Amino acid sequence: MSAMSGPVLDGLRDLLGERCSTALALREQHGHGESYHPTRLPDAVCHPKSTGDVVAIVRLCAEHRVPIVPFGAGTSLEGNVTPLEGGIALDMRLMNEVLEVYPEDMDATVQAGVTRKQLNAHIRDTGLFFPVDPGADATLGGMAATRASGTNAVRYGTMRENVVRMVVVMADGSVVRTGSRARKSAAGYDLTRIFVGSEGTLGIITEVTVRLHGIPETVLAARCTFGDVDAAVRTAVETIQSGVQIARIELLDANAIRAANHFAGLGLAERPTLFLEFHGSAAVVAEQAALVGELARDNGGEDWRATADAEERARIWQARHDMHYASMAMRPGSKTWGTDVCVPISRLPEVIHAVAEDIRDAPFFTAMLGHVGDGNFHVGFLLNMDDEEEIRRAEAYNERLVRHALRLGGTCTGEHGVGYGKAKFLIEEHGAEAVAAMRTLKRAYDPSNILNPRKILPA
Amino acid sequence: MSAMSGPVLDGLRDLLGERCSTALALREQHGHGESYHPTRLPDAVCHPKSTGDVVAIVRLCAEHRVPIVPFGAGTSLEGNVTPLEGGIALDMRLMNEVLEVYPEDMDATVQAGVTRKQLNAHIRDTGLFFPVDPGADATLGGMAATRASGTNAVRYGTMRENVVRMVVVMADGSVVRTGSRARKSAAGYDLTRIFVGSEGTLGIITEVTVRLHGIPETVLAARCTFGDVDAAVRTAVETIQSGVQIARIELLDANAIRAANHFAGLGLAERPTLFLEFHGSAAVVAEQAALVGELARDNGGEDWRATADAEERARIWQARHDMHYASMAMRPGSKTWGTDVCVPISRLPEVIHAVAEDIRDAPFFTAMLGHVGDGNFHVGFLLNMDDEEEIRRAEAYNERLVRHALRLGGTCTGEHGVGYGKAKFLIEEHGAEAVAAMRTLKRAYDPSNILNPRKILPA
Repeated sequence: MSAMSGPVLDGLRDLLGERCSTALALREQHGHGESYHPTRLPDAVCHPKSTGDVVAIVRLCAEHRVPIVPFGAGTSLEGNVTPLEGGIALDMRLMNEVLEVYPEDMDATVQAGVTRKQLNAHIRDTGLFFPVDPGADATLGGMAATRASGTNAVRYGTMRENVVRMVVVMADGSVVRTGSRARKSAAGYDLTRIFVGSEGTLGIITEVTVRLHGIPETVLAARCTFGDVDAAVRTAVETIQSGVQIARIELLDANAIRAANHFAGLGLAERPTLFLEFHGSAAVVAEQAALVGELARDNGGEDWRATADAEERARIWQARHDMHYASMAMRPGSKTWGTDVCVPISRLPEVIHAVAEDIRDAPFFTAMLGHVGDGNFHVGFLLNMDDEEEIRRAEAYNERLVRHALRLGGTCTGEHGVGYGKAKFLIEEHGAEAVAAMRTLKRAYDPSNILNPRKILPA
Repeated sequence: MSAMSGPVLDGLRDLLGERCSTALALREQHGHGESYHPTRLPDAVCHPKSTGDVVAIVRLCAEHRVPIVPFGAGTSLEGNVTPLEGGIALDMRLMNEVLEVYPEDMDATVQAGVTRKQLNAHIRDTGLFFPVDPGADATLGGMAATRASGTNAVRYGTMRENVVRMVVVMADGSVVRTGSRARKSAAGYDLTRIFVGSEGTLGIITEVTVRLHGIPETVLAARCTFGDVDAAVRTAVETIQSGVQIARIELLDANAIRAANHFAGLGLAERPTLFLEFHGSAAVVAEQAALVGELARDNGGEDWRATADAEERARIWQARHDMHYASMAMRPGSKTWGTDVCVPISRLPEVIHAVAEDIRDAPFFTAMLGHVGDGNFHVGFLLNMDDEEEIRRAEAYNERLVRHALRLGGTCTGEHGVGYGKAKFLIEEHGAEAVAAMRTLKRAYDPSNILNPRKILPA
């Protein structure tokens, strides 16, 4: 117990009973996300069941200035959930109820601990689906908090576009309901978008209303291999520029395919590969696939294979979603450093070419993959955390990549968030005045700095 | 001259020369938008040419606590630009340069005073267009500030989705650049969305980067008349629920058609009418139009007419965009009270039916029209401002409409903004805690309350 005094713990136990715990194993589980960042233990782990529970916890912590770090599925990659100052890990997973589904308005309201797969299972019979799909089966509260996206974002948008409204507990314990279920509104400040991407530093998201989308009449998946990464990226850029409303267009480099083969026995040719998906009526999908297939062939693409078979599609996309774990399996015992950047689509070939050259002789396993239709891509480094030289090399690769993306008008993270891993790039990306405006917002909403302290904003 | 001291005016004249004026006629032009709200004179009108000019003006005004009200095309409808506390009207129309167009990334950066039509003329040869189209030829800065939308929003989104980044001068004169040109980012707080819809109360937008969209291969416009408004609305709701990606679906009631006939000599049947538009490849458009045509006929729609002829389409949509002026022409000398609400699409028939009943015996000309694909619609009242009874009636209609929309889970304004006309509904819509969170934001960014004071937030 570091930051926490006896009265706080007593108060939390009165409130939550066994749903407040200081067991070491549980604290250890809540001390990190899924990346290389070191574990820092919270003093206690609390499991609220309702917005009311969260209000009571926040009031108690506010009174005693105890930090609170919201925790969803714990799958973030930049140390976003690490309790750097100790305090409470607020595990939201008991708040896992789907509260309301309005099929006719195409939206659903869930508690923050509901995962994306749980929501999709729940609405299976409505003809609708929720498209935002980071690799992990993350909670919707966590996805909103990190402005998550995934493979479908090129067509359906990220959490920025798909969160309709939220319930947020503020640092003073007040409960803010952001927005209505109307599709659009000009009625005041966009509180919803203030909290989307705020990583638990401005308020604690307890309920989320998300947009749903119609399951397309026809879904056609395709894949195509290329002689080098450049040709695959050019195909992706030309596809976007052609105006085709592609649903997914994902790049995996040869190492990523190797990892997927290894992990899921896919038996794919170990070459740079685009996985694509087309959504729409049969006629639309056929028209789009023909056009993109032609672009791929013009760029030297080979082995174009398209399938509408649901099982084969599911197998491919599961492999894509499992890439994080597949990479880890390539070097047992290692930790993953998964970085992501996003650039204007026209600059994508340049930055991907440069990073591919840079990491070619890396002394550890690397894999590159990306949501290239958005200009967003990931590089994973599999590190022996006992080897300082490896960590130093990964740091250097990451810094060169981020700085290159920023020089090209991009961002230091397309979808992983800042956590504390990328806070050092924030001023370089946004400028000192914009970061000052962010800091003003943080101070206004969390004057005692109890909400996920030392995240996003540089020290 | 009320709030302004001599030194401020001297300073502004030193800075701007003839671009700072206290001429009465000019002040009168900048004392109101396009609605019934009474004129309030600014003390002076300033015409900056650059972000640097705006910084200098803001610093001077901040020092002397002089209010600043940004002014674009002056076409807002809820008193958004009325200088309630006097001070400076900051006319942005000399900042009318298109700064950069990146066709390959599908975005463009403009100074805040560029209008939507000016941008579209500028990019005419790129194969791209900017879709957000409020009726007026508004400036992009003003459109961003009010979170504007229009007829295309159902497919292309509002300013919320189409603003990529901005340059904003803060109340202390610092210059914030929000975001990058990357399509998505998880790098910190969403400053862009904080300023979109803030109506000049949090900062002054001086540059806007917007998304562009490909001009569709085929555009098909259609119209269809109905026996009553309910049947037209049902058709719109069913169209959205069918998943058809319609580009435009607009309702005009019989009075609105009458006004359009009168203003533009259209010769249309004076019945409730849907105007629709389909964008895509020839095959897609044909498929969509056939499906929606069937839905319309099932709801008793008659005279379905479709055309791909560019001139005929332009004539129809010009008439739609001119509705504000067409309505005014129905009662010369009157002022328009144009209100708008937005509800979840499933509740649209109920609220439109109720308002149609409510205003049936109005003692003045009314017209109803709307972007019904979004659940957003407008009611216009043509008032004799010397007749207190008319104003009282209009107030009562407006309040009943707004309260009904709020009860159904909607918003008090879909696209006009709050100005001061709708500030009184803000707590009812968002709740006291959410409005308190908005107020905290306002205080944090504008502690001296010099930026468009007394707007958005209720007193």
